[in-house]
Formats: sequence, structure tokens, C-alpha cells
Amino acid sequence: MGIPGLRDIEDAQKRIAGVAARTPVVESPALSKLSGRQVFLKLECFQPIKVFKIRGAYNRISQVKEKGVVAASSGNHGIAVAYSSRLLGKKCTVVVPETIVREKAETITEYGAELVKAGRFSHERETKAREIARTTDSAFVHPFNDADVIAGQGTCGLEISQQLREFDSVLVPVGGGGLISGISIALKSQGRKPRIFGVEPENAPKLSGALSAKRIVTIASPSSVADGLMPSALGDLTYDACSRFVDGAFTASEEEILDATRVMVKEAKIIAEPSGAAPLAPLLSHREGLGERVVVVVSGGNISRDVLLRVLA
Amino acid sequence: MGIPGLRDIEDAQKRIAGVAARTPVVESPALSKLSGRQVFLKLECFQPIKVFKIRGAYNRISQVKEKGVVAASSGNHGIAVAYSSRLLGKKCTVVVPETIVREKAETITEYGAELVKAGRFSHERETKAREIARTTDSAFVHPFNDADVIAGQGTCGLEISQQLREFDSVLVPVGGGGLISGISIALKSQGRKPRIFGVEPENAPKLSGALSAKRIVTIASPSSVADGLMPSALGDLTYDACSRFVDGAFTASEEEILDATRVMVKEAKIIAEPSGAAPLAPLLSHREGLGERVVVVVSGGNISRDVLLRVLA
Repeated sequence: MGIPGLRDIEDAQKRIAGVAARTPVVESPALSKLSGRQVFLKLECFQPIKVFKIRGAYNRISQVKEKGVVAASSGNHGIAVAYSSRLLGKKCTVVVPETIVREKAETITEYGAELVKAGRFSHERETKAREIARTTDSAFVHPFNDADVIAGQGTCGLEISQQLREFDSVLVPVGGGGLISGISIALKSQGRKPRIFGVEPENAPKLSGALSAKRIVTIASPSSVADGLMPSALGDLTYDACSRFVDGAFTASEEEILDATRVMVKEAKIIAEPSGAAPLAPLLSHREGLGERVVVVVSGGNISRDVLLRVLA
Repeated sequence: MGIPGLRDIEDAQKRIAGVAARTPVVESPALSKLSGRQVFLKLECFQPIKVFKIRGAYNRISQVKEKGVVAASSGNHGIAVAYSSRLLGKKCTVVVPETIVREKAETITEYGAELVKAGRFSHERETKAREIARTTDSAFVHPFNDADVIAGQGTCGLEISQQLREFDSVLVPVGGGGLISGISIALKSQGRKPRIFGVEPENAPKLSGALSAKRIVTIASPSSVADGLMPSALGDLTYDACSRFVDGAFTASEEEILDATRVMVKEAKIIAEPSGAAPLAPLLSHREGLGERVVVVVSGGNISRDVLLRVLA
């Protein structure tokens, strides 16, 4: 099974209607003034559960034949899978790190998912989750390297093309590449061909690395305040989509990501998590090639109290 | 011209499509647990401009024949009128108090509206705004006592009835009564008849007063941290709608409103302004008559930095 096409994304749009929101695209006059271009925000932080991941998770789980689903996650993917499973009446298990903070664990269990703690590294959790899936009539739901998940995330790009007449480029945060894969497939499969750029932490440059090496690269110790952008590598599907449809990648330092989060709150009055504000960073540092009308995909708003207090200070 | 009907609200829904968002309705498991009922949030804080007022303002201004529009406001109504005017290519003037804080003034001018400072009291501003409208080929846009504005706000109620199968009651914050009028017309004109309750500051109890006196009452010195709920009286249209379709009103103390704002952030993870969190207060104080499935209309998210820091502390 290869990457999804435009038709799959259109089908996903029908499946998720009424569950995921058709989030607003709005110009931020303050950000336009600050960056000297027209800046539009695609506000995925206004999804139920405040993050785009509901799109992919719901599209995937709504097609699951098994009784249950299993995910490995410590964050937004786990919340999205738990939330979608609850709506769809599927038993849900989320494998989380032994070190998970109580607040995140509570959010996942609130939606009725069962938590299983396993190890500290993502590969340990994925192994455990796949094992549970095999033994309990459940489907394993990958956070990004899955055609149905990518098609679901692609609905974000489809909406942008339906909501905004003209735009030159789109800036998308990159974790495992599911969102940018879906968005770039949606936008490059239609008449207009805006430039699509990924934005990732300089300590987790898996897209930049892959685009220049022309193969999947694995980052030894990814780390960032943008905790949604820390997978150590693209998957084969997201690599395939990105290598075909993405025009480039920018990295942002930790300071630039926090600064983008601060500017998002103070200027645009939008509370985004660092992973969701990161794509603003290349605009603030006046990177080239973006054109006059730029869409920033604000992927999520699940900011921790600590980081919020830090950027409000 | 009397109050709008269901048909007017359905027409408004078509007019505002693609401009105002169809905001999510989500259950908050944390609030359900806390209150011992099922609590659903209608997230108007996820509108572009983060407040429901875009619905009424856009519905009204999209029908204006004059070249310009004028509003008197120091807050969300001014932002909504400025934002809608910009999209519709109308010249916009907003009359604000002489004492307006710089941050709010900036948000209004960002959308290209002209600011006129006049007096300190709302009646002074309204007089000035109506005068400007008369002399400049412009339409005065009232924040709530206007059939098109009420019809626009009613789309929020129409959406709730389309999004949620069963619910017993709806809690709506009350300023001048535009939102609760629209919602109650929408919901009481259809087959189901949920109970509709207004929630207002105990220092600005214009709906409670009007419902018990059976006439419009004027509050001498309304005051509250919920700055969107401070009009001193309902208008004749909103009084008419509320007296026919609203089942009752709850008041909330300043402490209860701040507490509701805090609970909304900490438990539901939703950042609401105090006016938008106020309708949660009757649930937290276990008021009677709400039933098992309760919808809380979280009307807006434009919280000031100071109040946000206070509720995060």
C-alpha cells in the first residue's frame, strides 16, 4: 500500500465531517505587518482536542474492522486515538512511557482508553503496542506512517485550497511527516502548486536530512521543547510523499521556537503549543522563497502550563 | 421589525458559511465527572477572532447597503464589526471609550477600522456612533438589539441542534441578550424543547431582573470581570425573545466567574475569557433544573494576559 492520492483525501473529508472541525483560515494583520508579507493562519489548534491529529486518527479508526485499537504515544496522537475510539465505540489501548507525566496520562484515560506503561523509548512502546494488537483482535494505529492517517491529515490541505484563493507557500511543522505529507499531496495534486515547506527543530532535522541525503535518515537523540516534532525519522510512506511533493525544509533553534510561540500569543493572540508555533519561525527570521502570501499551519494548542507561563512572562 | 424567526436564522447560516466557523461541540469528560452530568462545550472561542460575535456582525453587515458601518464598542463587538467590514469591503468606524486600553485599540485598528474616542459611558458612544452613521452614508450596527445580529447569533443554536442528538439544557452567557435570544429562538422553534438558561454576573443581572419584573430593567452600575456581560439593560428585541423563549437565569459572583474560568483552563483545557466561562458557574455550584445532558456555550476566548496569569496561578 503506497501513499494516498487526492481521491483518498476527498473520501477522508467525508468520513471526518462533523467530527473534526473545518478549522478557520484567518489573516493575522499583526503577523503580516511584522513579517512584511500576508500571513494566514490555518488554526488546527481550534480542533476538538486542539490538534490536527483527530483528522488522521478518526479517518483510520473509522475503517478498522477489529474490535479495538492500540497506539503507542505519549501525547497528541494518544489523545486523538482515544477520542476517536470513544466516538466509534472501539476499545482503545495506549502504550505510554513509564515516565509519562500525570496530566497527560489523565487526558488519555479521560476518554476511556486503557494505559499500558512500557519503557522509555518510542521503539519499545511500538513493539509493545504491536504485540498487544496481535493478541487482542486490535488494530495498531501508527502516528504517521499509515496511508489512512496521511489521507486524514491531508484534509487540512484540502480545506486550505477550498478556503483561500491565492497563496504562494505553506509552512507545516514536521514530526514524523504525516501532516506535511497529507497537505502536500492534497495541494500538489490540484491545479495550483504552492510551495510547501517543512519546519522542524534543529535538534530533530529528519526532513532536512532526508531531503539532502535523498533517503530516510535517523536522528540519534532528537530533542526539543516542540515535543510533537521529535520522532527520530520519517517513515517510508512519509518519506515517499515528502521527497515527491515538499519543496524544502527549514530548521528552527529552540530559542526561535519559543520566540515563535511567544509572538503567536502576543501578536496573533493565538495560544499554540511550541510544535504548532514552530512554522512561524522561518517568517520571523525572514527566510527566502516564501513569496507574498504565506499560510502557517498552526498544528496544535496543547501547551503545558509551564511553557505557557514562560511565553506570557 | 420584530425578532427573527427560524427561517431568518437558516438564511443567516448560509450567509456566514465559510466566514464564521461551525465550531465544535465536544463533551468534556473532566467536567462531566466534576459535575455529575454529561457536559458538552460549544466552543465559540474557536471562531476566527475567538468570539461568537462574528456571526451576528457578519450577517448584519453583509446586508448593509450603505458604504460604511459604525459601531460603538470597546471590545469584542468592535473587533467583530471591524473584521467583518474588512472582509466585505466596507469602511468601518468604531467609537470607543476615551479610556480604552492600547491593546484593544490595536486589535480593532489592525483590521483597518478607524477609531473615534468619545466619552466614558456606553450611551455617549452610541450617540456619537449614530451621529457619525447619519452624516457619512453608514449603517449603525447595534451589538445586540438588531434582528439581523440576533439571527446571526442564532446560527450557534442551529448548529447545536444539528451537532448534538439529545440534550436537556443549554447555558448561555448574557450581556445584552443577543446570543441567548438567537439560540433560544433557534432551539425553541424546532421539535425539541431543551431548557435555555442565561448566566450573568450578580453585579449585572439584567436578564434575571427582567424575567422577574416582566419588563426591561436597567442596572445602575453594572460591573464585572466578565467585561462582555456588562450592558446595563436588554433591548426591546432581546427582551421580547428572552421573555418568550428563555426558561430562567442564574447569576454568578465574581469569585464564581473566576473560578469557572480557572476550571475551564485546568480541567477542560480550554482558555475562555471570563464572559465565556461564566455559564459553567451554575454547574459548578450544582444548580437545579439542568438535567442530565447540559450544553455550555463558551462564547469567547479573548482573555487578557493579566486574567490569564491569574487563573493559571
